[in-house]
Amino acid sequence: MSRFDPFDALYIDLYQLTMAQAYLRSGHTAEATFSLFVRNLPPDRGYLLFAGLEDVLRYLERLRFTSQDLDYLRSTGQFGDYFIECLAGFRFTGSVRAMDEGTAFFANEPVIEVTAPVIEGQIVETFLINQVNMASLFATKAARVVKAAGGAGVADFAARRTHGTDAGNKFARSSFIGGFVGTSNVGAGARYGIPTIGTMAHSFITSFDSELAAFRAYADAFPDSTTLLVDTYDTVKGVKAAITVANELGSRGSRLVGIRLDSGDMDSLSRIARQMLDDASLHYVQIVTSGGLDEFSIEALVNGGAPIGAYGVGTLAGVSADAPWSDAVYKQVTYDGRPVAKFSPGKATFPGPKQVWRCLDEGDERVAHDHLTSADADSPESNAITLLHQVMRDGAVVGKLPSLGQVRDRARLELGRLPESVLHLSGPASIQVSVSDELRAPSPGRKRI
Amino acid sequence: MSRFDPFDALYIDLYQLTMAQAYLRSGHTAEATFSLFVRNLPPDRGYLLFAGLEDVLRYLERLRFTSQDLDYLRSTGQFGDYFIECLAGFRFTGSVRAMDEGTAFFANEPVIEVTAPVIEGQIVETFLINQVNMASLFATKAARVVKAAGGAGVADFAARRTHGTDAGNKFARSSFIGGFVGTSNVGAGARYGIPTIGTMAHSFITSFDSELAAFRAYADAFPDSTTLLVDTYDTVKGVKAAITVANELGSRGSRLVGIRLDSGDMDSLSRIARQMLDDASLHYVQIVTSGGLDEFSIEALVNGGAPIGAYGVGTLAGVSADAPWSDAVYKQVTYDGRPVAKFSPGKATFPGPKQVWRCLDEGDERVAHDHLTSADADSPESNAITLLHQVMRDGAVVGKLPSLGQVRDRARLELGRLPESVLHLSGPASIQVSVSDELRAPSPGRKRI
Repeated sequence: MSRFDPFDALYIDLYQLTMAQAYLRSGHTAEATFSLFVRNLPPDRGYLLFAGLEDVLRYLERLRFTSQDLDYLRSTGQFGDYFIECLAGFRFTGSVRAMDEGTAFFANEPVIEVTAPVIEGQIVETFLINQVNMASLFATKAARVVKAAGGAGVADFAARRTHGTDAGNKFARSSFIGGFVGTSNVGAGARYGIPTIGTMAHSFITSFDSELAAFRAYADAFPDSTTLLVDTYDTVKGVKAAITVANELGSRGSRLVGIRLDSGDMDSLSRIARQMLDDASLHYVQIVTSGGLDEFSIEALVNGGAPIGAYGVGTLAGVSADAPWSDAVYKQVTYDGRPVAKFSPGKATFPGPKQVWRCLDEGDERVAHDHLTSADADSPESNAITLLHQVMRDGAVVGKLPSLGQVRDRARLELGRLPESVLHLSGPASIQVSVSDELRAPSPGRKRI
Repeated sequence: MSRFDPFDALYIDLYQLTMAQAYLRSGHTAEATFSLFVRNLPPDRGYLLFAGLEDVLRYLERLRFTSQDLDYLRSTGQFGDYFIECLAGFRFTGSVRAMDEGTAFFANEPVIEVTAPVIEGQIVETFLINQVNMASLFATKAARVVKAAGGAGVADFAARRTHGTDAGNKFARSSFIGGFVGTSNVGAGARYGIPTIGTMAHSFITSFDSELAAFRAYADAFPDSTTLLVDTYDTVKGVKAAITVANELGSRGSRLVGIRLDSGDMDSLSRIARQMLDDASLHYVQIVTSGGLDEFSIEALVNGGAPIGAYGVGTLAGVSADAPWSDAVYKQVTYDGRPVAKFSPGKATFPGPKQVWRCLDEGDERVAHDHLTSADADSPESNAITLLHQVMRDGAVVGKLPSLGQVRDRARLELGRLPESVLHLSGPASIQVSVSDELRAPSPGRKRI
């Protein structure tokens, strides 16, 4: 793991620690299994793409309470010496079963199951939900934008408007999984090996005496990778200045990469700009648009035939604006070998560890339906594949984690397997998730008080 | 600054660095001023509370490119040795004028103005917008929830559903500024000195053989700070078990603090629970509710007279669900002493450094209107106060930053000064922000190409 992620053991809800102390005090320290799933898909989502597992596993491997952490906890007066000593030696020693990152999942399907001594399993809840919820929302939002763009490249410009820097970095990673081609976020480039992409800001233009002078200064510095921002003063005049610079670059054997539109009527401006560029024989200069774009506005531009080659997408994707949250939860499903569940209205859970079976159609090409069983159940039908695999044992990652590129490939494969109706940006169809009779039946070991 | 914030110099849009190299290459390195403001208030917001300044100033003081950062930048092949060397010695040496954290602000009002050599001013853009946008949205959302709660305490339970850990920590801080009484986030407690608050999870209940056994185990561990979660199986039975434990605690000289409802019809359940507690002479036991709450659902509960003593608010506040983004921008307003501006449709800016004047009514009690002038203009009227003050000079913080408690007090004062109509949760009135003729007039130094 890189220098970038000093995991903070105190990123935790207080009750995880108070419960842990109560568990310890009452000798209640047997093994438990916890399931992480969403109860409902967010609005207009026929699926979610699972992301965030790599950070979860690195966190579980590295989770330690520092002496500063322990000093703080001691200072609160809520924790006894014996418990603090227990935290000083804390290691996550449990096992984890999980879907592969990039897998499409649906409501009530566990994406992660953690089996560990109950205190260990409980203490990691806050971070696990936080990371998986965020990363999966982001990957899904990105996949929607990529679908809308219909083959044009989409880049992440969200770093300034995400909710903080962790979100900005994770959006870069998740959006790459969802199919973006790169990010403006340099740190995410360094951390994840994602291609970095950038043009110029309006301030660069305004700090020069003229737009043309600014364009020339930038093109001089980056003769082979310049995209000129043309809307600072007047877009048509901006395109003219860009054509001047493109011709100057051409005479020196370089090519202007593109022009960027960041305001105004993108459909009409892109047509005007394309015509002007084509008239100047600059067919190779790409038109990039940005500014308040999301899957809905991009779909409208694409359907209208706007000649746009690439999209820079920021705010509305970077906060998953139409669905900024899910109801992801992490629920105990066994304690000491006994299946358990809660029955709160609207929040009931199925007890016991589970397996998620993905049943493909006869051609093995599309998802037909999913089936939820207990972890040790037999295959429900011949062309069903299991989605939960062992990824951590005794606190150590099993095997080698897939590369980010492999996760991205997996996501593309998964999206290709979903029926078109499930991919719709509004009012998508659902994949049916059936639940085995065994899970639905009241379990003999399950106690109601 | 604490161990918690290893500021990452690479949390930056690529174009900040490519523009910097182009500036350097073209000898374009004069001083510039940048203004950070929102163009429009988000929906249903009559104001925003300014937050995030402390992190901005600490970042500016500590911003350095590490040798690892420089190695990565060199490896991209986009940057010349001279520029990399320049980054190796990078320090922010500029000045900052800003509003006090906790100040209410409106559209087009600069909350921060940065004056520095243009490369320094440009490089900090991504982080500054990111932090101020997030923290201000969060503080504002929290203030709305606190207003809705009408005197009942509100606590931050959002850590698991914010977009990442930076957002979770900053939501804890910002929501405390907005009037929350505490947070479940232990790290935020350690970092900011915010009171930490916690109850128990359903998993704690389900891991015991009975709800009563779980309640007893927790109360034994925390006889003076227990709030029992009563809805795991059946709320009425849960309240009965809580009454049993409250009586057992009482016989040992301790008091049960509260019971928590996390599902179902909060209005009716809280009345039933209150009646049961009162019938058992447990008037002191408080009812806490949580689960999908925001300012709108809390307002409905309060207006209905539900006997709820405190609210735990998570997801919907922690992502500012009804307004997860603002259009915060950071715009160059001078270069080398010359006022500059952009004229993009819908995105035009006023040139030059500014002052924001808050004009109070005759009793000095309420905000009458605001007035935007150039930085050096005279007071527009007798009872106008300036909102932008020098907070950093030559890269160093001027004076002592206010404590978090002082910022919280400031926010309460500011909210008290806003007319009630501006505080409405839906369809609020606006504070008028007038703009001086001087700012509106075309500036002689301003160039249109």
